[in-house]
Amino acid sequence: MADQKKMVDSITSMDVDFAQWYTDIVKKAELADYTSVKGCMAIRPYGYAIWENIQKILDGMFKATGHENVCMPMFIPESLLQKEKDHVEGFAPEVAWVTHGGNEKLEDRLCVRPTSETLFCEHYANIVKSYRDLPKLYNQWVSVVRWEKTTRPFLRTREFLWQEGHTIHETAEEAIEETERMLNIYADFCENYLAMPVIKGRKTESDKFAGAEATYAIEALMHDGKALQAATSHYFGDGFAKAFGIQYQSRENKLEYPFQTSWGCTTRLIGAIIMTHGDDNGLVLPPKVAPIQAVIVPVAQHKPGVLEKAAELKAVLEKDYRVKLDDSDNSPGWKFAEYEMKGVPVRIEIGPRDIENGQCVMVTRHNREKTVVSLASVSEEVGKKLQQVHDGMYRKALENRERRTYACKTVDEIISTLEKNGDGFVKAMWCGSEECEDKVKELTGVGSRCIPFEQEHISDVCVCCGKPAKHMVCWGKAY
Amino acid sequence: MADQKKMVDSITSMDVDFAQWYTDIVKKAELADYTSVKGCMAIRPYGYAIWENIQKILDGMFKATGHENVCMPMFIPESLLQKEKDHVEGFAPEVAWVTHGGNEKLEDRLCVRPTSETLFCEHYANIVKSYRDLPKLYNQWVSVVRWEKTTRPFLRTREFLWQEGHTIHETAEEAIEETERMLNIYADFCENYLAMPVIKGRKTESDKFAGAEATYAIEALMHDGKALQAATSHYFGDGFAKAFGIQYQSRENKLEYPFQTSWGCTTRLIGAIIMTHGDDNGLVLPPKVAPIQAVIVPVAQHKPGVLEKAAELKAVLEKDYRVKLDDSDNSPGWKFAEYEMKGVPVRIEIGPRDIENGQCVMVTRHNREKTVVSLASVSEEVGKKLQQVHDGMYRKALENRERRTYACKTVDEIISTLEKNGDGFVKAMWCGSEECEDKVKELTGVGSRCIPFEQEHISDVCVCCGKPAKHMVCWGKAY
Repeated sequence: MADQKKMVDSITSMDVDFAQWYTDIVKKAELADYTSVKGCMAIRPYGYAIWENIQKILDGMFKATGHENVCMPMFIPESLLQKEKDHVEGFAPEVAWVTHGGNEKLEDRLCVRPTSETLFCEHYANIVKSYRDLPKLYNQWVSVVRWEKTTRPFLRTREFLWQEGHTIHETAEEAIEETERMLNIYADFCENYLAMPVIKGRKTESDKFAGAEATYAIEALMHDGKALQAATSHYFGDGFAKAFGIQYQSRENKLEYPFQTSWGCTTRLIGAIIMTHGDDNGLVLPPKVAPIQAVIVPVAQHKPGVLEKAAELKAVLEKDYRVKLDDSDNSPGWKFAEYEMKGVPVRIEIGPRDIENGQCVMVTRHNREKTVVSLASVSEEVGKKLQQVHDGMYRKALENRERRTYACKTVDEIISTLEKNGDGFVKAMWCGSEECEDKVKELTGVGSRCIPFEQEHISDVCVCCGKPAKHMVCWGKAY
Repeated sequence: MADQKKMVDSITSMDVDFAQWYTDIVKKAELADYTSVKGCMAIRPYGYAIWENIQKILDGMFKATGHENVCMPMFIPESLLQKEKDHVEGFAPEVAWVTHGGNEKLEDRLCVRPTSETLFCEHYANIVKSYRDLPKLYNQWVSVVRWEKTTRPFLRTREFLWQEGHTIHETAEEAIEETERMLNIYADFCENYLAMPVIKGRKTESDKFAGAEATYAIEALMHDGKALQAATSHYFGDGFAKAFGIQYQSRENKLEYPFQTSWGCTTRLIGAIIMTHGDDNGLVLPPKVAPIQAVIVPVAQHKPGVLEKAAELKAVLEKDYRVKLDDSDNSPGWKFAEYEMKGVPVRIEIGPRDIENGQCVMVTRHNREKTVVSLASVSEEVGKKLQQVHDGMYRKALENRERRTYACKTVDEIISTLEKNGDGFVKAMWCGSEECEDKVKELTGVGSRCIPFEQEHISDVCVCCGKPAKHMVCWGKAY
């Protein structure tokens, strides 16, 4: 236990300094490292393996709903970026510019894509001619660059990995349906694969994506009561089609503008996992995306038969699960702390006495519960445990969110509630004016996160101006 | 058949204009499209699906040999790029430079990675402290940028997709072993998955990767007799470790420099597939990477029962294969030509008479052979056909290479042989001097492709200077 204590001591407690606790986990769990490229990180094998699992599951969900992967260039000529007015206004201030290729100065500067609407529009203008060519349901897994001033690993980096879906449809109805379908897929993924409850809603006008008619988002609440936007889905109407001259021959033989969407989620999901589930012993990984689902730690491994039995166990389990056997010469105590830090959902301990009794010990990471399990049913038991871990993690995260969600009727009530209870989601009514939106933020520190699809009636009037309310808004501080 | 004729007419014959034939296939098989970003392409769903299959297989081979995926930044600060002298000399002239981020001018320019040795070295300097940290066997799937003057889709583009492996080892022996292991994996992949025979060899000094001690490569011969480098594997010695100050505590408790390798292959493999296997009817895809392995074309599909039976057939086959049923209202003739253009390995035709007789017709793309197959054993038969197609394609490609490989003893013999027989591989002896290497190229037009591992004795003396020969070199024109 001396070893374990030492490792645990080496990360900051989340209650002492949440930001430092976060950074400690990123480093100690070997998820990412800093580089000499300011604001850009090196994603290490353990961190990247989580992303690979996220990709695999989401990619399967996208393909099951008819989407196809493509790959557009990483550069956008300045002249192309400028075609849609709102879009360029939103993105131009935060892009990286390539001005020289080899030794030659470029006539038209290229920006490194911050997002790829413009490139997809150009491509769609080339290939969409008739209603028979619609819809196109494209997606790409790439990285993008946004020149952020303040950066933190996974949460906000100048380069980040993501997927961006870009679709194009005959009718507005179909495009809106797609926007909602993809938001639902993201919510399903967060809840059923990352054990992370989310609120689905629409962004206010001032918070929309540059060039969108409507932006939908899912919002999750982190352990410290701050909100994190986990994914977004945008409906563009025919604005981009008009700006880029995309037209198709309709069923009625007329030239029409098609309707478009885009949707994306990023490596910041890994930051969300850390801050939703982690604790003072380190990372706690949702079983469905954990690179190692169960780790086998032999106890008294120098004794005859222990390593053999542990290897046998591994051979049985790896048929159905991602399993690691750690037979290194580190002490069991060191290993316990190490795999707790790495958030492995299930630990299996096996020593001479266990073998004698035909059993092993299973410890679940999220609640550190110990169970003695018969070796005869070990594979089945691991499956059950992983499901229990998932369910337990979801419940714990939901409880945190519920405990930290407050309904408020006045600005003063928001201020006093947050002061008393700490950060969280505030449900409060809103008249719909940008002025009130800004004022609430200024006075209370919490901004509009989204207008939840599931509306509640908190009061009749706007929390700020007292005029008749249009929506209940979910307010909060955001990552 | 009128429809079919029309589609086939629309691509240039490979004997008339091989380059135009290539471009026609890229466009008509919908592999890629041009963009307004000069030298960069949009990879379309059908082309990207081939790349996804390549990735999946290679990634499995890398992981089975202990490699892990990571992701480094896409930018390299100029100061970091300059740390290894040969490396910066080789790459600086062909990189894209980011000079502005947002509205701010950067102090240290960033290049978009042309390759990532420098970033991996920086990371290894951070994380490698002891022999216990070695080896690190890392790989990443990303895109890189090289500012090429002349570009062609897949073969040479300013941005291309690739994987780059970067490994670091205790001893030179281990690193050399790794370099060879990865070359063998690439050769295995090309031969057993892409049906493309390759020659394994070492590059001459003048043709080495910038910063490498030795570069190994696999070389394939395209249908037109030109060579294509399909993958490379580099041994770095401890040169990069010294330049980047990577040192580790050895087993003998001394500070030592580790030894490194890197290896990569790119989306140009898709160009290689086109030019190795394609014909005047379009693409011919190796079954193991084909997005659609078998296409079902119903004949007289308006007749009762035909579409039902075709759908049944699809349900049976898609358990084991990547299958498409085309029940669109295009004519069967149009569909035949379309899927020949797209290189689908097996076509299954099923009409009323077939159903009556409990059979279907299978046509293999590479040789257009027809077989009547019982519906009772259709799944098994598709499996057999796919293997036959793979074997047949490999044999055909090997025969082309053998027919176009010439052993020559003098420069004059090289000139007259190529004049008479057209481009191909020339096996000829070499003294080892760069002067002779350059002179052969100047006089004959063929350059050194590699020094094959499997040496043959063509004569005792250098094909150029007549002095004693050191190696047999494989010469050729290259893509």
